[in-house]
Parts: sequence; C-alpha cells; structure tokens
Amino acid sequence: MNANPKSESFADFPDDAPAPSQTHSSFAGRLLRRLLSSFGNPPVEFILWSGEHVAPDSGSAATIKVRIHDRATLLRVLRDPQVQFGEAYSSGRVEVEGDLIQLIELIYRGMPAQPAANSLRHRLVNWFRRSQRNTLAGSRRNIHHHYDIGNEFYALWLGETMAYTCAYYPTADASLEQAQIAKMDHVCRKLQLKPGDSVVEAGCGWGSLALHMASRYGARVRAFNISGEQVAYARERARQQQLDDRVEFIQDDYRNISGHYDVFASVGMLEHVGRENYAELGRVVRRSLGASGRGLIHSIGRNHPGLLHPWITRRIFPGAYAPSLAEMMQIFEPSGLSVLDVENIRLHYALTLRHWLDRYRVAEDRVRKMFDDTFVRMWRLYLAGSVAGFETGTLQLFQVLFTTRENNHIPLTRQYQYSA
Amino acid sequence: MNANPKSESFADFPDDAPAPSQTHSSFAGRLLRRLLSSFGNPPVEFILWSGEHVAPDSGSAATIKVRIHDRATLLRVLRDPQVQFGEAYSSGRVEVEGDLIQLIELIYRGMPAQPAANSLRHRLVNWFRRSQRNTLAGSRRNIHHHYDIGNEFYALWLGETMAYTCAYYPTADASLEQAQIAKMDHVCRKLQLKPGDSVVEAGCGWGSLALHMASRYGARVRAFNISGEQVAYARERARQQQLDDRVEFIQDDYRNISGHYDVFASVGMLEHVGRENYAELGRVVRRSLGASGRGLIHSIGRNHPGLLHPWITRRIFPGAYAPSLAEMMQIFEPSGLSVLDVENIRLHYALTLRHWLDRYRVAEDRVRKMFDDTFVRMWRLYLAGSVAGFETGTLQLFQVLFTTRENNHIPLTRQYQYSA
Repeated sequence: MNANPKSESFADFPDDAPAPSQTHSSFAGRLLRRLLSSFGNPPVEFILWSGEHVAPDSGSAATIKVRIHDRATLLRVLRDPQVQFGEAYSSGRVEVEGDLIQLIELIYRGMPAQPAANSLRHRLVNWFRRSQRNTLAGSRRNIHHHYDIGNEFYALWLGETMAYTCAYYPTADASLEQAQIAKMDHVCRKLQLKPGDSVVEAGCGWGSLALHMASRYGARVRAFNISGEQVAYARERARQQQLDDRVEFIQDDYRNISGHYDVFASVGMLEHVGRENYAELGRVVRRSLGASGRGLIHSIGRNHPGLLHPWITRRIFPGAYAPSLAEMMQIFEPSGLSVLDVENIRLHYALTLRHWLDRYRVAEDRVRKMFDDTFVRMWRLYLAGSVAGFETGTLQLFQVLFTTRENNHIPLTRQYQYSA
Repeated sequence: MNANPKSESFADFPDDAPAPSQTHSSFAGRLLRRLLSSFGNPPVEFILWSGEHVAPDSGSAATIKVRIHDRATLLRVLRDPQVQFGEAYSSGRVEVEGDLIQLIELIYRGMPAQPAANSLRHRLVNWFRRSQRNTLAGSRRNIHHHYDIGNEFYALWLGETMAYTCAYYPTADASLEQAQIAKMDHVCRKLQLKPGDSVVEAGCGWGSLALHMASRYGARVRAFNISGEQVAYARERARQQQLDDRVEFIQDDYRNISGHYDVFASVGMLEHVGRENYAELGRVVRRSLGASGRGLIHSIGRNHPGLLHPWITRRIFPGAYAPSLAEMMQIFEPSGLSVLDVENIRLHYALTLRHWLDRYRVAEDRVRKMFDDTFVRMWRLYLAGSVAGFETGTLQLFQVLFTTRENNHIPLTRQYQYSA
C-alpha cells in the first residue's frame, strides 16, 4: 500500500467536525456528494466515521450504503481508488450494505476507459510487476498463489464439477452443474471429439474437462497443470472414476508439452500465460498437432488491450492478463494456424460468477474458519467485482476454435454445434 | 512489365536447339525438370516452343499440360513468377490444358509462405502502389476499375441474385442461387433483423442484400456504394420490386455515412477499404449505431498478415487487401465495439467461385465479344486462382458479428442462428 494520508496533496484536507445533519456537511461530505453527482447520483449513500450521511442530490432513496470507518481510509481510496477500495473493503474499513455487484457496476460504468495497453502507464506498471512475469519459475509462483490455497476451499462454492471457468448456459435458468457440463459438451462438440482421439490439455484445473472427454467421448487425454494441489486432486478423481488408464495428469508447464495429438484444448489457462509468451504457446500448439489437428482456447478477454484491474493482479491473480482478440491472434497468426470460429460468451461468465458468489456467501462462516475475515471479504469482492466486469462489458470471454492452415476437413457450417 | 530477356542475369541462357526427344533435354528443359522435382513431381508436363516435352521424373502420367510459346516468356515467368505467369497466361503465351485450379493449387502448396506484412518488401510494394491508395478519390478509381466494366458482363456468370460475394452452402450440393439466398438469410439471422429495423449498408454491390433485408425482413435500408454502374442497376431493381420506398441506394463513400441506425452491414467491401482506414471505418460504424446497435462485416481475410497476390492487385483489384483477424480487429478495438462472433467460411467461397467459373466458361464466347481474348483469359485465371486461394487456405472468409460495448441485449447462445 503506497497511500500516505500525510502526503502533500492532501495536506490541506481539514479535520472534520462531527456533522450529524446532512444539511451541514463536512468537507469530506461535500467531496463525496460531488463524486456522487459526477456519477449521475446513483442510489448510493455514504456513512462517514463521524456519523454524517452523504446521500445523492437526486433525493431518491439510496439502496446501497457505504460505511467508511475512518478518514485515513477515505483519503487512501480517493487517492488510488482502483487499488485502495479493494484494500479497504478487505480490511473492513469500508463496508457495503446492499447490492455489492450493483455498486461496482455503477463505478465501472461511470469510470473512463482503461488506459491503452501500450501507454506509458501500462509499460511502467509492467516494469514494476516484473516479479510477476510468467517465466517457468514465475508462472509456478503465480499459479501457486491462487490455485494451491486448498481444494476444500474451492469445493465449498465451485460445485461438484470443480470447474473453475466460465460455464455455458443453454438457458439462463440452468443450474451451475448443468451449465458446467453443457460447457464441457460445447467445447467437445466444437472440437468434434470422437472415440480414440488423443487430446492434450494445457491448464486442466481439477481435471473436470479431461475426465469428461474420456468418460463421455472416449478420448485419451494428457492434461498439463503446474498447480500441485490441483494435479493431486485430479489424479485421485481419475482413479475413483477408473479413468486413470485413459487420462494422464502431468504436473508440468504447457511449454514442456511434447508428442503429437489430434486435439489441443486449453480452457482458462491463457489468462496466466502472459502476452510475451503467446507466440511460444502458438508454436507449442502447432508442433503438437498433425495436419488435421484442431484446437480450442477459451479465455477471459477484453474489447481492447488493457491491464486487468490492479487490485485483482495484486491480491487475486498475480501475473494475469486478459487479451483483446487482436492480442490473442498473436498465438495463431505467426504459427500457421487458422481460426475457424470465435464465440464471445461474456454473459455466461456473469451467470457463472453469480452462482459461485451465492454459494460462497452461504459458506462464508466456513471460509472464515479456514482463513480469516480479511480473506472472506477479499474473495467476496473478487467474485462480485468479476460479475460486474462481465456484466458491464469490461471483460469478455472468448472461445477460439482453430485448425492447422492446411486442414480442409472442416465442417461446412456450425450446425453440428447445435444438433442435439 | 519489367522483365527483360536480354538482362544480365540471363545473359548466359543459351539458345536451345530443338530437342524433340525427352532424353536429350535442353537447358530450359533441365531447368523446368528441376522445378518439377522441387515441387515433388506433380502430374504436370511442360511443352516448349521447340516441341520439347518436359515431364516429371516420377514417370506418372501428367494430367496437366503447360505450353510455353516462346523463350522470352519462360524467362519472364522464371524471373517474376507471381506477376508474369498471370501476364503470360492472359496474353496466351502460356496455355494450360487440364485442370487450371489444380495447377494453381500445386503452385500455392509448393511455395514458401508470403512475406510478413511489415517486411521491407511489403513496405516497398506499398510505396510503389501509392497510386492505388484508398483515399476518397483513389477508392473511386479502384472501384471503377473493377465494378464499372459492365453489368451485362457480371450478369453472365453471377446468377440472378447478382451477389458478388461468398455464398453460404447449407449443404455442398446447394445451387449458387440457393447458397446466395442462404448467405443473405445467414447474415440477417446473425443480425436478428426484424421488421422496422433501420439498416445502413456499406458497399452494397448490385443491391441484393439490401433488397432482401427489405422484402424478407421488413427492414428499411440505406445502402452506400461508389460504383455508379452498380447503384444504377440496384435502383432499377428496387423500382421493379416496388421496394424503392424502403431501400435507398446512395452513390457515396462509406466515410460519408450519416444518421443513426439499428444495424450496420458490410458484405465484401472491407477488401477495398485499406488497412490505413480501418480505424476510421470503426468510427463510422460506432457513430452510426445506437446503444443496442449491432453489425456484421464480411470480408476476405488471411491467416496472417500479407499482401494479396501481386498479379491480382495489378490486373483485377487495384488497392485491395485481405486482412488477418488481428488486423481486422483494428476496426473494432479502438472504437468501443465488442466482437460477439467470428465465423470463417473459406470453403464456401471455393464452392461459390467454382459455380461462377463454371458459368463463366460457358459464357466465354459472349465475354470475348464484349471485350477480347486477353480479357477472357485474365478473368478465367482470376476466378480459377481464387478457387485455389480459398481451397489451399491462402485466403479465408471472415464474418464478424459485433455490437456496441454497452449492449447487454445479446442472445445467450448462437442457437438462434441455426433454428429453422
């Protein structure tokens, strides 16, 4: 945390006298009211440490209440809202009553667009984040940070598929489990997976897709992952389902994939690859596939290049990046791969995350026992913020289906993806 | 034409004595045999001006015969095959018996990849082609060159829809007319076109899509095109079909589009826009669409950046360029547009072009009366070469469906595109 409440730029920020009435507002109160006004007076009310209430000018009743517990916290959040709101929320110094997702969406919709990916700021941030770079060792550190914190924790809210990626909702009222299975089927159908196909999977999570490909489609799968906790869990599942003769889980980096396969699949790994490694990923894909090979990469993306939210890369996903489609093409274009089909299913991730968040909130007492109160709030904010990211279009979800340049054995239409 | 048979590099090229027997081959014959060998000895036989036959070493019977009528032509083609093969074929100094498409595919498959789009060569070529640049005036010249050569000529082989873009074959045995109508329906379905929608079309050809949108979907369409011949034809069709109250054809550049619309559509214009204008096209699209606007751009593309075949941009499509997907994203990413769906239907263009070529060959005598023998051969080569381009994956065909960044009224799945 780099905010300093004694810093020059806030030296003239006066001590607030208690101001219980809204009509006699403090300097902080006036500042926050102006902030509300610049956001179009959303139904948000601030409650300050002094007891002062700051409501929007519009006079409409606020459905979201934001309690700010001390002046230093307000200063920090005003100076660096992107990082410090998350820090303050996690520590409990800012509390939100009402719809947290709606609050974050109001902020996203009211904020200016992200800086361009190659802006000076962007490059500086990248330089400061060099410790998060996705070298072989850096990737292990980054992945360990998020995915090795305990399978029991994830089991509390991911549901029985243990799939930690965007699900696919044939209809909006599908259950999380139905939608995760539908996602796996959607991926397998796009890939025209058939009995005997050999598949290499890059970044396999707890193994749900690899096991699904083997059990439902008769494929043989080699699945790579550098998270030790996930690989151990996935291997145990393979044994229990008696699929360990057809599905091999390998604790290694995608860069070390060897051999030839009919199919390459990667669902939710690209976010951790780093733009500087896209061309190498493309070479790995190309050398893994024969002349009629096909593949699918599923990843969080963006409408235009830009960094992920800085609080997310600080606290939740170190080293992560969500590419624009143009950036994603740097996997395929230099490597003799041909893109057949791109589908953007961002609203499905909003639905998925809402299901996860609902289950997470029910399990918060158990999460608190596993970790602490800060952790509970941090992950609640991460899940709610992610819903808001996908609902506001700040984030996208791209599924890119591709084949080798020379392959003409491709379906004429996409009807095959939609047949029962 | 810049080839000079007396140039230094060929000064040592000897006069060939007639060599009727294959066993005593001339220098030219040995050179061509080595060429065949480097292409893996395809079933191609050369017949030289001297009567000498040059067959592949493999001994398999050649199904394609290439007659070369004089030594100077061979020299020119060997020095600059990309441009000079087309020139020699058009002038009749090289003749091909057998499958012309197959011959070109052999060449494409045997050739090294195109130079990268930003290579020195690429930049030099762009500099030399500055006369073809797509400024407002340059675009008019470029479009006039191709599209204003006579509606009667195009009517000979485009079929009654007069659609001069990739069709969509629900099954490979669909007729050209069925496939062109299916393409228009595929585009309208993707756009969820409904009665009363206002559409702006950029680059409308002879008006088939605009008229289809009005007559079958009840849309109101303003369609832009800078080809005077095409606009005149389209207006006449609108009158005949009594759609001129709902479809307006405007002879103007897409850059001059004004007004607000529910839908933006552009099928087969992007090839003529020029990469330097993609960001401007994106701004035109963005300012034309309201918050829930949607659009589709359909264009020839490539797997990776590269120039079109130089003979094509010299003789057929001055100023044309087929972008890679990453390049195409420069329309959408800077402009607050969100890509929902990309479909690559390159094999459909190969089918479409085969249908066009079949009809063209039947009509060649009539084309000869309209133009001359050189024109007949030039356009035959262009159509056959285009089939080869799409069949070998040298060319792609992308349909990109998009909406505004803020629009959440998007279908959850693509099932709607495949319902009857």
